[in-house]
Amino acid sequence: MNHPITFKLVAKDAKTHARRGVLTTPHGEIQTPIFMPVGTQATVKAMTPRELKEIGTQIMLSNTYHLHLRPGEELIREAGGLHRFMAWDKPILTDSGGFQVFSLSSLRKIREEGVTFRSHLDGATMFMGPEESMAIQEALGSDIAMAFDVCTAYPCDHQTAREAMERTHRWAQRCQKAHTREDQALFGIVQGAFFTDLRIESAKALADMDFPGYGIGGLSVGEPKPIMYDLLDEIMPYMPEAKPRYLMGVGSPDCLVEGVYRGIDMFDCVLATRIARNGTCFTDNGRLVVRNAKYAHDFGPIEEGCDCYACQNFSRAYIRHLLKAGEITGGRLATIHNLRYLLRLMERIRRAIEENRYEEFRKEFFAKYDMSRNF
Amino acid sequence: MNHPITFKLVAKDAKTHARRGVLTTPHGEIQTPIFMPVGTQATVKAMTPRELKEIGTQIMLSNTYHLHLRPGEELIREAGGLHRFMAWDKPILTDSGGFQVFSLSSLRKIREEGVTFRSHLDGATMFMGPEESMAIQEALGSDIAMAFDVCTAYPCDHQTAREAMERTHRWAQRCQKAHTREDQALFGIVQGAFFTDLRIESAKALADMDFPGYGIGGLSVGEPKPIMYDLLDEIMPYMPEAKPRYLMGVGSPDCLVEGVYRGIDMFDCVLATRIARNGTCFTDNGRLVVRNAKYAHDFGPIEEGCDCYACQNFSRAYIRHLLKAGEITGGRLATIHNLRYLLRLMERIRRAIEENRYEEFRKEFFAKYDMSRNF
Repeated sequence: MNHPITFKLVAKDAKTHARRGVLTTPHGEIQTPIFMPVGTQATVKAMTPRELKEIGTQIMLSNTYHLHLRPGEELIREAGGLHRFMAWDKPILTDSGGFQVFSLSSLRKIREEGVTFRSHLDGATMFMGPEESMAIQEALGSDIAMAFDVCTAYPCDHQTAREAMERTHRWAQRCQKAHTREDQALFGIVQGAFFTDLRIESAKALADMDFPGYGIGGLSVGEPKPIMYDLLDEIMPYMPEAKPRYLMGVGSPDCLVEGVYRGIDMFDCVLATRIARNGTCFTDNGRLVVRNAKYAHDFGPIEEGCDCYACQNFSRAYIRHLLKAGEITGGRLATIHNLRYLLRLMERIRRAIEENRYEEFRKEFFAKYDMSRNF
Repeated sequence: MNHPITFKLVAKDAKTHARRGVLTTPHGEIQTPIFMPVGTQATVKAMTPRELKEIGTQIMLSNTYHLHLRPGEELIREAGGLHRFMAWDKPILTDSGGFQVFSLSSLRKIREEGVTFRSHLDGATMFMGPEESMAIQEALGSDIAMAFDVCTAYPCDHQTAREAMERTHRWAQRCQKAHTREDQALFGIVQGAFFTDLRIESAKALADMDFPGYGIGGLSVGEPKPIMYDLLDEIMPYMPEAKPRYLMGVGSPDCLVEGVYRGIDMFDCVLATRIARNGTCFTDNGRLVVRNAKYAHDFGPIEEGCDCYACQNFSRAYIRHLLKAGEITGGRLATIHNLRYLLRLMERIRRAIEENRYEEFRKEFFAKYDMSRNF
């Protein structure tokens, strides 16, 4: 199968599983490991494409479920595709809708054909299966489409997890069959809940299907982080070495460092943008709630040494004032900082891998990071 | 009296009262006639200083009443003044709080000393008089402070209007006496409601006080526009020729063209930013409600020929989608367009005056402008 993307490993850390790669897509190269800002509804909340580029965004994520509901994929196709619609000329990855159908819609009915659900917007009854998800993602024209998978609640029993996983595999095959767009790659998604045997089985089954990349789905859904890390340790040997590995929906600073440590290449998460609008910021010392009264007279930046527009120009006191006054600009500045923080963290991570000192980097990171102010 | 600002008329239109000037302030030169974007709470809603500069903002307005309530002028003084606080290094004009005490607060009691009122934020009882307004504006450190005036409702009777005007004059003198900051200019405000005799009396009384500039307050408060225009026609001969004239709170495209026609040099208004967040845009043809269903499949820009970031990159269909989806980016793009529209209109106005063809410009403007889509 001729894949429209290529992945090349350019460096491997000697003491850890961290890897440095280059993912080439129809809309350009991505240096991995990478964090992908999330533009659920065809925009990263409060950001413009120009700002995204300025903070170093290499690829942005958008969402099949949301865009299908509003404005609809046909409108976006008519606009010339999602890149043109939102004026973003770099790579885009679209999630398949599997997780959103599971987490946002109501009255779900999952059968072998697909999922019948009610729209979270207007309650309309809708149907989405592997073929529908592929058709939507092809209309959107993302560089990377994700297979339509079955998600499970946390916790769930082994039997439920097995059934969901097996269906996910059958749906992955249907996605491959339905997928036709030659300028779009299709990634499979490993499932299996929190059962090591199922996760390994899933990783192997999907590896056999020869996808150009693999998501790891269904994690960071409420389980303690050590459980996620242990699971990653156990399944990573079964994830194809030569393919990009994408830990879906994970994006707190500590998880990025720990994910890369275990061999993850790609991350996405709404955490950075969501908490920003409430005035919570990432720093190397952990969470900083700039909205707090103690910053009212603090004329320093959100984070000393940060090169973002917010930190270079505005004080904690000012951003706090804006947030307290309900000003959009406050959320904007915190969003810029949080996204830049994660993208800069990934830059530092990539450099550490290139310099073959990822273990030291990780130790230094956690020596400074206050876990009592974690996410 | 040594004024920290100078105003120089550089061109006068032969057939109209339109004038082209340069206002020099401690934070730089302003080419007039000018529109001033409003940053009520120390930010122009949804905009950053960088974006404001990019669209050609020369001076921005902020608000004594709002900043006194939150975060308080002492915090801003501590931050190094309003320019530093909001990272805006160009000129700032602060309104005095007179109009906001009148329009926003409740349980007002106006006596000779000043106004007792309840904060619109938390109901706390507060007092502001000319001396308090001056002290706050000096703490903020704006380039231009406005005198604390008495506003009247529309309509109001002649006796009420006279009393308010006379008190405004006494307060203007108290403002001059209380004002000490040598790097800040103090403008007087002409009042007199909709009575020509009072307005002329007010213009003359204030001219005698030798302010370096004059606001015209209490207009655009609900009266039909022809009434405002007629009043401007009648009072303008009494407004000092050599001083800048600022028509307060007026900022729809037609009013800018008509105001300049009558000799106005400065304008401010929240209309541009307020309607933008609801998806209503300025164009040379009048109002365009980009949120409307008829633009769902319209892939053209908000306004053909506009050089703003929104029009250069995004379609009506996209901006409509963002607004419908409740995305901040939608309001941001419409705000950028609306402010740029007004600033570009002022650029065209200035050029027309320099070329001594303002009357033609005005005719062409209204030939294109659809008054049924006015504001």
